[in-house]
Amino acid sequence: MSGNTFGHLFAVTNFGESHGPAIGCVIDGCPPGMDLTEADIQGDLDRRRPGTSKFVTQRNEPDAVQILSGVYQGKTTGTPIALLIQNTDQRSKDYGNILETFRPGHADYTYFQKYGIRDPRGGGRSSARLTAPMVAAGAVAKKWLKEHYGTAFRGCMTQVGELPVGFESWDHVPNNPFFAPVADVSALEEYMEALRKGGDSCGARIRVVASGVPVGLGEPLFDKMDADIAYAMMGINAVKGVEIGAGFASIAQRGSVHGDSLTPVGFASNNAGGVLGGISTGQDLEVSIAIKPTSSILTPRDSIDVEGNPTAVVTKGRHDPCVGIRATPIAEAMLALVVMDHVLRHRAQCGDVHTSLKAIPASAS
Amino acid sequence: MSGNTFGHLFAVTNFGESHGPAIGCVIDGCPPGMDLTEADIQGDLDRRRPGTSKFVTQRNEPDAVQILSGVYQGKTTGTPIALLIQNTDQRSKDYGNILETFRPGHADYTYFQKYGIRDPRGGGRSSARLTAPMVAAGAVAKKWLKEHYGTAFRGCMTQVGELPVGFESWDHVPNNPFFAPVADVSALEEYMEALRKGGDSCGARIRVVASGVPVGLGEPLFDKMDADIAYAMMGINAVKGVEIGAGFASIAQRGSVHGDSLTPVGFASNNAGGVLGGISTGQDLEVSIAIKPTSSILTPRDSIDVEGNPTAVVTKGRHDPCVGIRATPIAEAMLALVVMDHVLRHRAQCGDVHTSLKAIPASAS
Amino acid sequence: MSGNTFGHLFAVTNFGESHGPAIGCVIDGCPPGMDLTEADIQGDLDRRRPGTSKFVTQRNEPDAVQILSGVYQGKTTGTPIALLIQNTDQRSKDYGNILETFRPGHADYTYFQKYGIRDPRGGGRSSARLTAPMVAAGAVAKKWLKEHYGTAFRGCMTQVGELPVGFESWDHVPNNPFFAPVADVSALEEYMEALRKGGDSCGARIRVVASGVPVGLGEPLFDKMDADIAYAMMGINAVKGVEIGAGFASIAQRGSVHGDSLTPVGFASNNAGGVLGGISTGQDLEVSIAIKPTSSILTPRDSIDVEGNPTAVVTKGRHDPCVGIRATPIAEAMLALVVMDHVLRHRAQCGDVHTSLKAIPASAS
Amino acid sequence: MSGNTFGHLFAVTNFGESHGPAIGCVIDGCPPGMDLTEADIQGDLDRRRPGTSKFVTQRNEPDAVQILSGVYQGKTTGTPIALLIQNTDQRSKDYGNILETFRPGHADYTYFQKYGIRDPRGGGRSSARLTAPMVAAGAVAKKWLKEHYGTAFRGCMTQVGELPVGFESWDHVPNNPFFAPVADVSALEEYMEALRKGGDSCGARIRVVASGVPVGLGEPLFDKMDADIAYAMMGINAVKGVEIGAGFASIAQRGSVHGDSLTPVGFASNNAGGVLGGISTGQDLEVSIAIKPTSSILTPRDSIDVEGNPTAVVTKGRHDPCVGIRATPIAEAMLALVVMDHVLRHRAQCGDVHTSLKAIPASAS
Repeated sequence: MSGNTFGHLFAVTNFGESHGPAIGCVIDGCPPGMDLTEADIQGDLDRRRPGTSKFVTQRNEPDAVQILSGVYQGKTTGTPIALLIQNTDQRSKDYGNILETFRPGHADYTYFQKYGIRDPRGGGRSSARLTAPMVAAGAVAKKWLKEHYGTAFRGCMTQVGELPVGFESWDHVPNNPFFAPVADVSALEEYMEALRKGGDSCGARIRVVASGVPVGLGEPLFDKMDADIAYAMMGINAVKGVEIGAGFASIAQRGSVHGDSLTPVGFASNNAGGVLGGISTGQDLEVSIAIKPTSSILTPRDSIDVEGNPTAVVTKGRHDPCVGIRATPIAEAMLALVVMDHVLRHRAQCGDVHTSLKAIPASAS
Repeated sequence: MSGNTFGHLFAVTNFGESHGPAIGCVIDGCPPGMDLTEADIQGDLDRRRPGTSKFVTQRNEPDAVQILSGVYQGKTTGTPIALLIQNTDQRSKDYGNILETFRPGHADYTYFQKYGIRDPRGGGRSSARLTAPMVAAGAVAKKWLKEHYGTAFRGCMTQVGELPVGFESWDHVPNNPFFAPVADVSALEEYMEALRKGGDSCGARIRVVASGVPVGLGEPLFDKMDADIAYAMMGINAVKGVEIGAGFASIAQRGSVHGDSLTPVGFASNNAGGVLGGISTGQDLEVSIAIKPTSSILTPRDSIDVEGNPTAVVTKGRHDPCVGIRATPIAEAMLALVVMDHVLRHRAQCGDVHTSLKAIPASAS
Repeated sequence: MSGNTFGHLFAVTNFGESHGPAIGCVIDGCPPGMDLTEADIQGDLDRRRPGTSKFVTQRNEPDAVQILSGVYQGKTTGTPIALLIQNTDQRSKDYGNILETFRPGHADYTYFQKYGIRDPRGGGRSSARLTAPMVAAGAVAKKWLKEHYGTAFRGCMTQVGELPVGFESWDHVPNNPFFAPVADVSALEEYMEALRKGGDSCGARIRVVASGVPVGLGEPLFDKMDADIAYAMMGINAVKGVEIGAGFASIAQRGSVHGDSLTPVGFASNNAGGVLGGISTGQDLEVSIAIKPTSSILTPRDSIDVEGNPTAVVTKGRHDPCVGIRATPIAEAMLALVVMDHVLRHRAQCGDVHTSLKAIPASAS
Repeated sequence: MSGNTFGHLFAVTNFGESHGPAIGCVIDGCPPGMDLTEADIQGDLDRRRPGTSKFVTQRNEPDAVQILSGVYQGKTTGTPIALLIQNTDQRSKDYGNILETFRPGHADYTYFQKYGIRDPRGGGRSSARLTAPMVAAGAVAKKWLKEHYGTAFRGCMTQVGELPVGFESWDHVPNNPFFAPVADVSALEEYMEALRKGGDSCGARIRVVASGVPVGLGEPLFDKMDADIAYAMMGINAVKGVEIGAGFASIAQRGSVHGDSLTPVGFASNNAGGVLGGISTGQDLEVSIAIKPTSSILTPRDSIDVEGNPTAVVTKGRHDPCVGIRATPIAEAMLALVVMDHVLRHRAQCGDVHTSLKAIPASAS
């Protein structure tokens, strides 16, 4: 209830602060009998790890995950899976100059207002570092979904600042530090280099897609598949907007264009983004998110201190100039957690999950 | 868990179908001691009522609300408030021609896949009619929030199809059937008239604003204020996108611009839309949503029947050509329900709710 | 969260007061496709109905249930089932003399302390009348469980006041107003008659049994089958104690006696009451509850008024001299709701539900 | 939902197995600003620790607790408090002879049926060792309640096997290994010694009391204070019965005796056990529980193996001959967690918590 557990039936309780001894999560509700080792989880953690290129924070964390419970002889037992990640490089001293000052666009102001506590250590609990345990939990969900339904989750960067990235192929995504689906990222590198030198930051747009999603997932009124996706995505640090399918472009569409025709071999288009009436159609789930520019920048900003006096603030810590760069595996993980939770919810009430259709193919794509 | 309850501490359980005998909801968790009568609720219900202009569905429903419980001698008792709305004009025969056919862009396909049940009566549970009980529940939340913190909720249409509406004043909103914040709506009328004659539909953009929101509301990691708003908004029928504050425009902003400066008299701007790190800043909550065009249109569409055979479908029922027109009071209600829930959650853990700041004013605006 | 919803996946939200216009509930999570009419529910409601003998309250309520939603063409659709029961005989005037006085042993004192509201109408929300919607919801769960697993729920009175009832056969239970499993209830009648004439009340012990329960239901640490049963039973009005299996008698048992031996054809005894480690064994669930004497009696009692002044109180309303007499169908219903919820929870995580064993028979009984 | 989280607003998620690397819990919802160190928690952990006398398991665990998160500079921050306890003495080899056999009265049978997984390491997740993190979490709740309302939690053994313990004074409880409230425990020692030599086990009755409980806590219909207590207590390993106040003795009481008279200075008795209508009266919460004999005994028992073949089983591991001996601090902790959760729930809806009465004193005792 205090906002640290994600999901209902595949429930992930997250704990830790960026500068405490460790972070982690407890997954409750994982079906028993799945093969699981740390290696199954480490891959996605490495994808979001800091320190991997000069365009992301230089904090150096191995982010090695340890399974504390819920797995016996290499198989999930159905009991809680506790995952622990030690913090090894928490240089709190870098934050010395912002101890008494609020950063514009940062959560330190609202945390102080809510709890009456000032925890200046790199954002404490509001740090994007806390997405690491979610990526770990998402890896468990991804594995189960892939084994059971062949569901796959992919993401890529589609815009950075005012620069559109374009889409060539999913194959390029792992070959560059931006998760860009293009072969040549030199323009991106130049853009980010100029930004970094200027001591400023920019936003990004990320696209996430789930394919092989069973049909019929999602609840009718409130825990709709798209509502839960919006909740999951907007909850990622720095996200300010979420679209499903045609998204904001659907405003200007006519109903005769927007509604995806059904044919005997599947839908003819996917403006719906894989969701109708909150329930999955079996087509790809198509999600797009807007990520705001990082608030921790070298450019001096007007602000106030905890006493309310005017001051200027500069953040010297090791921060991402575009926090969106590392957001792709996070968004994939959150999407996987949403789908996983809805599979279990669907099983509870309806008893079976379809990957093929009862009457017609869900998708021709 | 089956997606018919909204909220956690101010929990609204919704029931009913568009063509059953009645719809309604049960509000659990309303604080005791507030004056409440049906008249306090009816006003907002009348704002979203069908049949009020030629631009919305001609279904004629009085939507008179009855309080069945939870109020004694005009005051809330703290026990569940059951609200009942009779369905009086459920002409199921209008739907005869779509009994065996799926409408492109409509939930009838996914409901059939999920539950294996075909309920063709006007969309049954997926009908926008089920937003009426939420508007009723939202009116209760609005009243309590206004009395305790002076919180106010307002909404308006900002775009219809490809036509931007502009913003002149909130004062115009109640004076036209579009909830448009402009004095002259003749362009809107012409646009809608052409659309209606063409048998087609279009989308809309709605803006919703909460002012006088206490600071410090929202949970740190998952039930963030903005995540819960995204969940609430994306769950409204036909919504395909949600933005908070600068939203998608923040992608192209620099961090030095996006981050709202703090001054001794409050924030200097509101790109954050009233939320930092998932917690309310005390500034206005600024939300914008994209609503897709109605799927039930007179224009013939390619589709399939329940056997999977190709067919064409035309929807002759009484439908809104732009479902976004009536969405404003719905979006206001959902936003009020989110804020109300977070006030109660904040009281539980932190014991007090601030409208003024501990250290500095939340907003100079 | 405010305590008016029972269950998680088969969730029943209860509303109403004993003297308001109506009471009822909303069932969320019922699987789709089950045949259901009002007649399926009315039978159990008639079993707990007041006014059926001179040993229970003379309030005369038909308690006719109306299905408002969730059923289409006689089948559950998977959407919320709203059930409504009109209050027709709410004679509030009977309570006139206790308007300003607290009854010893009654909830009117604690309700006043909690909510600051004085609702003297027959106990308002604390009335046992609110068990009627639970009996209705339980009837839906019973029907589904019977059709899917052959699960059956039975209950009987085993003690009234200091008088043990004995057990001859389940067949006798429907043939007397006490739910007593004996052929001759004349001793019970005399006991109750003396009590009624004396203007006093007494307690009772009720036994409830579920047979044909699938094995493996219940969660490992907190939502254990027995913990949830204890929660359900202790939540019934006037219950002060709950036992599973050998219950309090197990204190004096040796481990070598208490532990039920396993044999190739099943367990040799059932001291466990059908639950080991919180998870159902497949044997009968055996539950026993203690019900305190009714607090509303004709015997004058010392008490205080709302101002704290000493006074005497006599309750003249139509009350049950032994509220336990009508508790049997209520306890059955609550047990059915617990089992139903756990079936759905088990399906979610483990995907299948066993009625027969994987390796050996669950029970030889 | 999978039964590893206790509580709603003060929510404790438990993880680990008795023979894995570590056990622990995450507390979500603790109010910010309370002083908290490991020392505040260790005291209660030491009270339930194994290996402290010859009458409990000889497993030697320091059970040193480590706070991983949620505390900064010695104060709770309002974010999740993760507590970790390393397992240091997990001698799995002791369990070698029961790898393929089910123990009568033990959860290994039902776990196998539920999950299809055989984890023979000392009961794995069903071990009473998993109560250690609950005792730790309970210590946090106790501290907060004591500081805010002066609430105190005490427990003692009142019966072991067929031997009643009697009650002399709470002062004796910490002075003997049985938590017995008597000065001379030689009879208890002899009883236990004979039992241990005989290779058998026995049950126990534990009494737990909370004093200084605010009035008005508990929800009206389902999350009643007594229902939640029953749920918490029945969920403790080996508990088979729960009573509140007069409990099963209330069956034979008359209403004129059972109902506690109210006087201007408080209640005249406490048959209610501190709860009326599910809501706390402000008097002491009085709870009594029945604990069954340990299932792991040296006496040979008839059983079956995982193939269903008949066999005999003897458990040679280090087990408690009366698991009830160490149950007192566990029951106290669970009661504290229930009260804590209800304080937060009450704050959410009603905004304030009373320790003194609005109108009259809650208790004269």
